Amino acid sequence: MIEPDFDKTGGLVPAVVQDVETNKILMLAYMNREAWNKTLKTGKATYWSRSRSKLWIKGETSGNFQQVREVRIDCDADAVLLKVDQKGAACHLGYYSCFFRRISGDDVEVVEERLFDPEEVYKNEQ
Amino acid sequence: MIEPDFDKTGGLVPAVVQDVETNKILMLAYMNREAWNKTLKTGKATYWSRSRSKLWIKGETSGNFQQVREVRIDCDADAVLLKVDQKGAACHLGYYSCFFRRISGDDVEVVEERLFDPEEVYKNEQ
Repeated sequence: MIEPDFDKTGGLVPAVVQDVETNKILMLAYMNREAWNKTLKTGKATYWSRSRSKLWIKGETSGNFQQVREVRIDCDADAVLLKVDQKGAACHLGYYSCFFRRISGDDVEVVEERLFDPEEVYKNEQ
Repeated sequence: MIEPDFDKTGGLVPAVVQDVETNKILMLAYMNREAWNKTLKTGKATYWSRSRSKLWIKGETSGNFQQVREVRIDCDADAVLLKVDQKGAACHLGYYSCFFRRISGDDVEVVEERLFDPEEVYKNEQ
């Protein structure tokens, strides 16, 4: 069974997350071996949260789970791609994609719609 | 002018590279501040090669340049997304995308076509 080269990368491998229907890039997260195994076993995208230093089932707080439809691994086995069904929105700021800002010269433009109010969704998380 | 948070991430920020026409994910690479500035200035995707420890204009050896059409930055400013016109193929193994392997249970399946022979393209690189 192939797996990402966790040793090469200090234990964490970046996971690009793509909407399986629209092909939009939703986010970039990180997986350790436990997150990888749990994702494959459960079909629910699971990451390692670097800020909270814990395993993180995407959607466990917000309800915005990611059902994994396809998993790919890159040529050097040091990055993975998840194609997912995104429930709700991926970004903790309420946008469908975390990549909601486009850079145009010296300007930054918000190019995605905000789908939820993060203060409402994460109000019990303080 | 916004820029990625290079300090947070030890100097390197992951860049997800997406084909602007097909929306396929081509590769994941890393940028330091110099690569970021050069990419914005020249419109040619430029990365930091971790294996060679040098600035790397994608395509400088193979001819498979990436013309950058759109740049996005994520919510935490610790990842970027480049939408590009890919000339030839992105992967150094000759595939259009580096993510040419799909994981299905215990099996790995090649799901992209090989477009060039890497031994031919990189023959002067030893």
